[in-house]
Amino acid sequence: MILTAFLMSLSLIFCIIYQEKLINYLSFIIPIALLLLIGYLFNIRKAKSKRLLAREGLVIAGTTWLIIAFFGCMPFMISKEIPNFFDAFFEMVSGFTTTGASILTGEEMEALSHSLKFWRSFSHWIGGMGVLVFILAIIPESKEGSAVHILRAESPGPQVGRLVSKMQATSRILYLIYLVLTIIQFLFLWIGPDNKMNWFNSLIYTLGTAGTGGFSIHAAGVGYFSIYSQYVIAIFMIIFGINFSLFYLVLIGNVKEAFKNEELRWYLTIVTISVLIICFTIYNIYDNVEETFRHSLFQVATIISTSGYSTVDFEQWPTIAKCVLLLLMISGGCAGSTAGGIKVARIGLLTKSSISKVKNTVNPRQVTTTTFDGKAVNENMIDNIQTYFVVYCMVFVVCTFLISVDGFDLITNITSSLTCLNNVGPGLGNIVGPAGSFGDFSN
Amino acid sequence: MILTAFLMSLSLIFCIIYQEKLINYLSFIIPIALLLLIGYLFNIRKAKSKRLLAREGLVIAGTTWLIIAFFGCMPFMISKEIPNFFDAFFEMVSGFTTTGASILTGEEMEALSHSLKFWRSFSHWIGGMGVLVFILAIIPESKEGSAVHILRAESPGPQVGRLVSKMQATSRILYLIYLVLTIIQFLFLWIGPDNKMNWFNSLIYTLGTAGTGGFSIHAAGVGYFSIYSQYVIAIFMIIFGINFSLFYLVLIGNVKEAFKNEELRWYLTIVTISVLIICFTIYNIYDNVEETFRHSLFQVATIISTSGYSTVDFEQWPTIAKCVLLLLMISGGCAGSTAGGIKVARIGLLTKSSISKVKNTVNPRQVTTTTFDGKAVNENMIDNIQTYFVVYCMVFVVCTFLISVDGFDLITNITSSLTCLNNVGPGLGNIVGPAGSFGDFSN
Repeated sequence: MILTAFLMSLSLIFCIIYQEKLINYLSFIIPIALLLLIGYLFNIRKAKSKRLLAREGLVIAGTTWLIIAFFGCMPFMISKEIPNFFDAFFEMVSGFTTTGASILTGEEMEALSHSLKFWRSFSHWIGGMGVLVFILAIIPESKEGSAVHILRAESPGPQVGRLVSKMQATSRILYLIYLVLTIIQFLFLWIGPDNKMNWFNSLIYTLGTAGTGGFSIHAAGVGYFSIYSQYVIAIFMIIFGINFSLFYLVLIGNVKEAFKNEELRWYLTIVTISVLIICFTIYNIYDNVEETFRHSLFQVATIISTSGYSTVDFEQWPTIAKCVLLLLMISGGCAGSTAGGIKVARIGLLTKSSISKVKNTVNPRQVTTTTFDGKAVNENMIDNIQTYFVVYCMVFVVCTFLISVDGFDLITNITSSLTCLNNVGPGLGNIVGPAGSFGDFSN
Repeated sequence: MILTAFLMSLSLIFCIIYQEKLINYLSFIIPIALLLLIGYLFNIRKAKSKRLLAREGLVIAGTTWLIIAFFGCMPFMISKEIPNFFDAFFEMVSGFTTTGASILTGEEMEALSHSLKFWRSFSHWIGGMGVLVFILAIIPESKEGSAVHILRAESPGPQVGRLVSKMQATSRILYLIYLVLTIIQFLFLWIGPDNKMNWFNSLIYTLGTAGTGGFSIHAAGVGYFSIYSQYVIAIFMIIFGINFSLFYLVLIGNVKEAFKNEELRWYLTIVTISVLIICFTIYNIYDNVEETFRHSLFQVATIISTSGYSTVDFEQWPTIAKCVLLLLMISGGCAGSTAGGIKVARIGLLTKSSISKVKNTVNPRQVTTTTFDGKAVNENMIDNIQTYFVVYCMVFVVCTFLISVDGFDLITNITSSLTCLNNVGPGLGNIVGPAGSFGDFSN
């Protein structure tokens, strides 16, 4: 809570720069004061043991998300820019989980104060960072959770095993990589030839890209900016969907090892094939080859990295292109990145293990093993991933069922569940599509 | 092939009774002659060993489905009542797999000759029977495939174990149960107070119900018949979705044991809850409580048993009711019945094993086991079911993607894949909904 107060106080800088009204200052100062007070009170009595059990880790992770979103949505309510609690809470949950689904319409997000625009997009950056924290921090060293299993599965060699034994050092390295990549993208956007990309816009869109969040502050989304900016954002979205430990490999000079990574190769293959299929289906919609390619690349990058920015209203695309985007939504980026979704490594392992089990049915005597990154994969890990997948499907079904009470059509219900479950942002249909808003749903 | 020729020759009786044209006789005699000739030629050289390996069983099953549908669709082509090969083949695949999705519109199916109407619906009955044959017959006794595992899981006590060791006897008992239930339903419909249910209509709708197929011969579907007939068909659809070995238990006087069956209890609970939810969502559409209840019961029965008849166009129902129907489509009936879908036992085991694994994540030291029918379930079986589920999802995704080339909307693509994959029949949307036809798809 004290950390949240500190992060929130950065928004006050924007109140000062843009000489905002008193209520804007207060809208941040009140929750900051509350967070500091409550955080201080909770901190008086120290824990006797610092050792965490799996169960405690889960409780910490769960309550942290709720608390940060609850206090995080106060500035919107106090400033009355999003007066309804359910709307403001939705917006901040969407922000911190890097979903990027918004209850605001294009005009409403353009009308927000600068300090709130910053805080809204900054939540993506905090959340994106948070995913890494949670993956590596909540799992006690004695317990090998599935997250570590996944990280280990996709990263052969010593780096993950070694990093896990020094959790603090690992976290710091990964934070640093995250920060450096963010700064590089910011500079590319700010220094680039796009006049509309002033320092503020560059910052906002970089925060949303780095966290693979996708909150926009323009009705036209990234389509508002120049071709140059669109390419920069597309490429960085793909980059932020890659396992961060591979950047570490590159940093320590082991470039070859990084490119050997099986998940990375699957990821880049999926991106390439998807771009080609979409180009082929939308070739007659746009004026020239460059535009077709750019919109395909951008939309594929935004969906597979689960960012959720858009340059066009892909709701208008043919069904087959929308099908590709739905599949990318489910897949998501690489494990150990800021992207959401099931993750390419899990999809890859599910596919491979299923194939080997089907082969085993045909030839019962043949011993089949699933390999990933050239190594045999533990049966227990495949079992965990299969269970993950089953639970994922069940959560999806329950969510779709629950929101169907609102009476919207099935595509709206299905794709809004999918897009939120995978932290993407836009769904399909007129209500939750790239041009729509989640504000049409009931509280 | 010789068996198929024999089954097909029954259609000639209808040519005689209804004094049909010469071309109708020929349309059956030509494929019968071909089947007998080719079947005889293949039979000249006897196999040296009668022992089947898993792989051979799979090839036999796969080619049987293709051959029976290929020769089965000839009468439609020769008589020119369905001249296009792709249409006729689709219709027969749909028939033998007890899907019941039709390329014919309501008027076209009413216009078919009686002999073809019979052959079309008889394919459901053969296919429904076939499912049991395949489940119990293709798996070599030495190899415990997942189907046997499922049957064993849901049927505690000796009957499945004992029946498996005498495969021939088992098959005969199950055929007999199937035949007797079919005759009982036929009598209920024929003798009942519904004037429109003459012996021919009673036969056609009984064949479709028993095989849980769902081919109708009236544009209004079962809605054409009286309330009495609708209830009879609804109840028999639910009955044909129950594991046939439970009827065997009842036959040998072990009624209590049959009702203790966990899958049956899940199945009846799902039916009850679904009917209640749908009643609640459609109460303002129909005139009175009886009508609301009847349409809810009928549509729930038709979808969970994967028959596919309908009394109303549920495309017009609210989204939440359609959501319930989609979930029932995926679930399907009980293992060991003529119903399709994932099967209630698999859904139950997936749910239970996922819950125990999630519990295990929270309390890593606690040993959790999944039980079904009061017995601990083998880890290997759960693994098989999980793999089945993953492959199921992949097939679904690939199917949806492939048919999206036709350019229809996503709901049409998603629900037509689901309805065919689960052997239901109708999907959602104007094209494949209960009032639509699959003839709108390209070849």
